[in-house]
Amino acid sequence: VKLYNMGLAVNPRRVRMFLAEKKLQVEMIEINIPKGENLTPEFLAINPRGVVPTLVLDDGAVLDESVAICRYIESLHPDPNLMGTSPLETAQIESWQRHMEFDGLSSVALAFRNMVPFFATRSAPGNVPSLGQMAELVERGKLLTQHWLANLETRLSESAFVAGNRFTIADITAFTTIDFAKAIKQFVTDAQPNLQRWYAEIAARPSAKA
Amino acid sequence: VKLYNMGLAVNPRRVRMFLAEKKLQVEMIEINIPKGENLTPEFLAINPRGVVPTLVLDDGAVLDESVAICRYIESLHPDPNLMGTSPLETAQIESWQRHMEFDGLSSVALAFRNMVPFFATRSAPGNVPSLGQMAELVERGKLLTQHWLANLETRLSESAFVAGNRFTIADITAFTTIDFAKAIKQFVTDAQPNLQRWYAEIAARPSAKA
Repeated sequence: VKLYNMGLAVNPRRVRMFLAEKKLQVEMIEINIPKGENLTPEFLAINPRGVVPTLVLDDGAVLDESVAICRYIESLHPDPNLMGTSPLETAQIESWQRHMEFDGLSSVALAFRNMVPFFATRSAPGNVPSLGQMAELVERGKLLTQHWLANLETRLSESAFVAGNRFTIADITAFTTIDFAKAIKQFVTDAQPNLQRWYAEIAARPSAKA
Repeated sequence: VKLYNMGLAVNPRRVRMFLAEKKLQVEMIEINIPKGENLTPEFLAINPRGVVPTLVLDDGAVLDESVAICRYIESLHPDPNLMGTSPLETAQIESWQRHMEFDGLSSVALAFRNMVPFFATRSAPGNVPSLGQMAELVERGKLLTQHWLANLETRLSESAFVAGNRFTIADITAFTTIDFAKAIKQFVTDAQPNLQRWYAEIAARPSAKA
């Protein structure tokens, strides 16, 4: 098994953190996205969409999407459970996980891709038509990120973890997104004590270093 | 069980089509999003994010996200299978389903929300800060939709269905997105025979009318 990875990118980090929670190690191959290594003919032959993480199994089967990779790992290595046990809990965790993606991660990514110089002609990720950057989308991304953090503060005032009373994949998405948000200068504030309490707890887990 | 629904919206339609494939019927309550019924205090008390579909179970538990609702239904009503059986197949179907969302549905929605008059101050969906429309995002959404359709034509030249050799949730997402794309004047063309073959097959299923 090989994981095409980028050390600094948020989506591969989600998978690395998921693997670390399961105490699993896999061979990693670094793909430098700012340098365009995700768009070489060699990498596009593995993943035509030109994104990481991409997991290649020993028989050559390819899984090219973060959450799908996590679900595959969860099936083969069910302990500790990170994606739910009963039908209802599994659906609720998926729901929260997706809210963290759509409300949080996609907002941070919108600002980031429209801001950093090395994506000047690649503001949409992967193997898609060239798109320039728009300053207004940086502002939109930041505004939506702040809105997401405010909602998450409310959630964590009622719940120990994002999806309920235990650590799940939804915490991984939220935590890695908050670290990603530092790149667009959006931070958890002193007025968000529940986010701070939760963030400190997750940051103390060994998987946070993965 | 009650499904908060909007007849003309793509995300509730995904769930309705999924239910129809399982031959299940649930009570539906119509929420008119253009009229703002998703942002009333009554609806926000059920779903604070202000979006549909939202499924409320008989014990009051709420599932507020399309794919999470589908996964819950799949767990309780496993036949016909729409989300995979083995760990690898389940992950591959999820991967394709998510590609249809991120590459297709989100592109169409980007154009649509920035185009139609009733979203003039609500170009981001749900209970979020007011955002105006940007003409350039209509063009971006259309361009990315065309790119997605071209990639899907290639995929369907190699595969009977989106995720492989049988009908799955990935086909539901792709099919409903292609219908949604008509609202932004993007269509499958005569130069895309595999898309046309596949679209006609899916359109002939009784669930396509759900």
